[in-house]
Amino acid sequence: MDAEEGLPFVKYRKNESTWFRVLKQRLPILQWAPKYDRMTAVADLVAGITLGLTLVPQSIAYASLANLPVQYGLYSAYIGTMLYVVLGTVKEVSIGPTSLMSLLILQICRGLPVEFVVLLSFLSGCMVLIMGLLRLGFLVDLISPSVTSGFTSATAVIITASQIKGLLGLSFTAESVFDNIRLIVLKWDEVRTPDCILGAVCCAVLLLLRKLKDLQVHPKKPKVKKALWLISIGRNALVVILASTFAYFTYDPQDPLIKLSGRVEPGLPPLSMPPFSAVLENRTVHFVEMVQHLGAGMLMMPIVMVLANIAIAKAFSSGGRIDATQEMLTLGLCNIVGSLVHAVPTCGAFTRSAVSHSSGVRTPAAGLYSGIITLLALIFLTKHFFFIPKACLSSVLICAVIFMIDLSIIRRLWREDRKELAVLGLTFVVSIVKGVELAVLAGSLASVAVLIRGVMTPSVPMYTIKTCDGEVCRVRPTLCAVYLNSARVAARVAAGAARVAPRPVLLDCGQLALLDYAAGQVLVRLIKKMKESNQMLLFYNVGKDIFKQIEALEGVEKRTLKATNVIEALNLIEEKYEIEETTPLLSKDA
Amino acid sequence: MDAEEGLPFVKYRKNESTWFRVLKQRLPILQWAPKYDRMTAVADLVAGITLGLTLVPQSIAYASLANLPVQYGLYSAYIGTMLYVVLGTVKEVSIGPTSLMSLLILQICRGLPVEFVVLLSFLSGCMVLIMGLLRLGFLVDLISPSVTSGFTSATAVIITASQIKGLLGLSFTAESVFDNIRLIVLKWDEVRTPDCILGAVCCAVLLLLRKLKDLQVHPKKPKVKKALWLISIGRNALVVILASTFAYFTYDPQDPLIKLSGRVEPGLPPLSMPPFSAVLENRTVHFVEMVQHLGAGMLMMPIVMVLANIAIAKAFSSGGRIDATQEMLTLGLCNIVGSLVHAVPTCGAFTRSAVSHSSGVRTPAAGLYSGIITLLALIFLTKHFFFIPKACLSSVLICAVIFMIDLSIIRRLWREDRKELAVLGLTFVVSIVKGVELAVLAGSLASVAVLIRGVMTPSVPMYTIKTCDGEVCRVRPTLCAVYLNSARVAARVAAGAARVAPRPVLLDCGQLALLDYAAGQVLVRLIKKMKESNQMLLFYNVGKDIFKQIEALEGVEKRTLKATNVIEALNLIEEKYEIEETTPLLSKDA
Repeated sequence: MDAEEGLPFVKYRKNESTWFRVLKQRLPILQWAPKYDRMTAVADLVAGITLGLTLVPQSIAYASLANLPVQYGLYSAYIGTMLYVVLGTVKEVSIGPTSLMSLLILQICRGLPVEFVVLLSFLSGCMVLIMGLLRLGFLVDLISPSVTSGFTSATAVIITASQIKGLLGLSFTAESVFDNIRLIVLKWDEVRTPDCILGAVCCAVLLLLRKLKDLQVHPKKPKVKKALWLISIGRNALVVILASTFAYFTYDPQDPLIKLSGRVEPGLPPLSMPPFSAVLENRTVHFVEMVQHLGAGMLMMPIVMVLANIAIAKAFSSGGRIDATQEMLTLGLCNIVGSLVHAVPTCGAFTRSAVSHSSGVRTPAAGLYSGIITLLALIFLTKHFFFIPKACLSSVLICAVIFMIDLSIIRRLWREDRKELAVLGLTFVVSIVKGVELAVLAGSLASVAVLIRGVMTPSVPMYTIKTCDGEVCRVRPTLCAVYLNSARVAARVAAGAARVAPRPVLLDCGQLALLDYAAGQVLVRLIKKMKESNQMLLFYNVGKDIFKQIEALEGVEKRTLKATNVIEALNLIEEKYEIEETTPLLSKDA
Repeated sequence: MDAEEGLPFVKYRKNESTWFRVLKQRLPILQWAPKYDRMTAVADLVAGITLGLTLVPQSIAYASLANLPVQYGLYSAYIGTMLYVVLGTVKEVSIGPTSLMSLLILQICRGLPVEFVVLLSFLSGCMVLIMGLLRLGFLVDLISPSVTSGFTSATAVIITASQIKGLLGLSFTAESVFDNIRLIVLKWDEVRTPDCILGAVCCAVLLLLRKLKDLQVHPKKPKVKKALWLISIGRNALVVILASTFAYFTYDPQDPLIKLSGRVEPGLPPLSMPPFSAVLENRTVHFVEMVQHLGAGMLMMPIVMVLANIAIAKAFSSGGRIDATQEMLTLGLCNIVGSLVHAVPTCGAFTRSAVSHSSGVRTPAAGLYSGIITLLALIFLTKHFFFIPKACLSSVLICAVIFMIDLSIIRRLWREDRKELAVLGLTFVVSIVKGVELAVLAGSLASVAVLIRGVMTPSVPMYTIKTCDGEVCRVRPTLCAVYLNSARVAARVAAGAARVAPRPVLLDCGQLALLDYAAGQVLVRLIKKMKESNQMLLFYNVGKDIFKQIEALEGVEKRTLKATNVIEALNLIEEKYEIEETTPLLSKDA
């Protein structure tokens, strides 16, 4: 695997020294910067600004989802975006706060002060960096698409459930989906009508604006089309600005009409070391204890980060081929550096990457412009964040995540692969009931179980072939012979052997690409047992993947290994079986 | 799998009604009893008596290993042996107490009264019966030979460590191997010389007698050979009788020279329901609480039982083919019925099966005679069991298990498959440190990990082939395309596509026998992406295992699926690529 992972990701010019090649691979900006021209810069500027208009309101909303002061969303938004300019390989990827990260923060750091979240960001970054250095990207392949789909949908459901209270103007802390529903029912009397109305309006506007870009416009009016598209893409910013303006003009400090975000720390965050101690319940907690509080989440966070980031990179990179190691190193650095400016855990966001893509981004440089927009928002706008209504942020979140619920895949899997549907269902249910971490584990194990079931029961077709000396038997095991299924293969061969005894059984290895030690030993025992009754087990058509292994088996007849068909194999041991080549082969195989 | 599992195990006469066939399959005695003749009966009688001479002393020793009163060994020995006559399919298998069962009893029921052990026998029997009815025998295949080897060797080490105290005349209860060693060192002053000497003599005699049957005897003296063989096989009984006689004549109630087994309940056990309540620490404990005390052992016990029994049945059945369902039903019934006469958990024993085999057993009827010998021992000999020295029982145990430690496999695996060696080592170490149950789980997961590693990195050879229109690319994925490796396969195809664009890429599916939904979706995306740049991805040589799935893929070119080579495939889409059949194919493939 490594040999190929190491294939140069980009074609390099000859005459380049090795260290410059490595430098180019690890600082991909060196690949595109020399060719950067004005047209590309303009395209990137447009895409970057568009992205910024999504990034700022999303960051605020994701911070509120994670129960963090809203400025932390922006603290986390600009570092990743700007570092990716230098280190990133996929131009569409936008690293920053995401719904998945917020949900995990909520689950891991419930009831803990924000220092824990920043430390989690730092530690996760370190873990991802180490995973990148150790080339552990393959771990992500263990999480099957059904698991990803199940837990993405569950994430959307959990987030929606947690945001309904915001739409209704309620305030409480709830652990699970059921908790949320229970508390909403209990507190139904406290529902605030103005918040409800504002929330409903925001949702309606967001959903309508989302459809705006698909509107049929007369093809001679490209500017109208472009304006509609821009409004559609910038809908989050638009709704937040409109709702905040409304809140500003209706604001009454004594009896606020709608619930607002409240005071926000204005300005840029100070640069500082990640917090290695924090105050929890009036007591100073040090590093080791902080880590204990974070618990298993410290392992889960980096894996989910890498999973999300690589999935997005794969989806947007041309040819589906990405440099997983570089992506992991970048993601790790983004989180480590981020934790120095109080950023919470970040990774690539699918929604924002789609915005970049449809805005016509050309190079990762677009991130620079959206980063600058975020910084400007931090410097000049934070004092106005006070007026962002909570119902508005809930609307932004709900309208972002409900489209992550993928119902069509259920129909498709029901038709095509119900085992995968079961895996998806299991992951979804465990996510809702027991949390996302356990669900990923349970789903992955279920995927492996489905795979093992496939490996345990490969088809082992068997044919009898008439030769001039009588019948021989041909057995053609498929897939692989491993400890899980070797008894099955051996039983088939024994059945064939009993039928044509004492004539040979020919084992066609053409479809075998994996043979483990246990299966090898089963075959050795079979050869021995058949030899005792003067019957031969001949291997032929052996591919190069397993040639050495088959050749090393005790008692194996080496002459026939390279034969490609039954006649050739029998001819190679002709002192026992004289075959006239003209003898017709009557086989069910044809 | 089921279709084949259901294949008739024995050839039946025509004209037999279906229910009689089923009856014959479920009561295998009906298969051999009608043909039972005097010669077979004599052979079985000899084998049965020989087996009895091993069964009685082993049962006593295994009971003492499990920290149970020695009569419980015999209570457990006759029911299984005799039921197997009626229900068993493999003539060599002897169901009764085994070292593995005793070790598990020791681990699961430490400090609990014997009622718990009998209940465990009943519940395990029920579980095995249910596993048999649900056809869950395939679960045993999940435990790879490396795991079995590792935990068998560990069992031998644990048993040896626990029996050294008996050889030294010490008494204490120890949990683990390390505990045993620590306590032996601590109590070194209390070591009793007479016990040591007796133990050493017993061990020496047992090991020498074991070698006796391999002695070269003049071929004209078959009777001498036979006598030596009989002494060798009956060595356990011989040593126990000699040692007990010695103890009887040197016995002094005031100051016993050597430690003895002590009082044994004489006679047959009463027939009674399994104990659904017991007295623990002066308190009556009812069923539910008893089950809680047994804990996870209740799941582990039946799985290990089935594993051991099926492994032995496989090793001795002709052709390696066994009726796993029937074996499980039998084993379940043996334990359930056994629990009615105070039997502890039982399963097939490898050592005894080997004795049966070398004694020339002909049908399962031999078990009847060894069962009768056990019953006679229970009725007439139990009062003499008082005098069996503990050091003698320890010697019998140690000399039985040390040959289970398989060192040769380590050397072989080091040469041939170090991943398997790692699995074996892991299982061994976990067994010693954390117990056999956890070791089987850890080892099985490690085996699956090794398999997954193999599946993740199959070779995907790629060739370029020159045609008259230019180069095309042929990619030949091996093994399977599943979620674990589909990204890798797709990347290879994309690389090939980039090389020959816009000429087609041909995907040879001849070695693919498994394709899951995730991999199918990856291929669909690839087809789509290549179509966008007017390049074709053609599948050919598609085997019947995956034909339907490939055919159902969105956008797949159906015409070429059945083509067996590149020329044929290209000809089938000739409106685009005109190939003269005379064009030489230059391929690295040849």
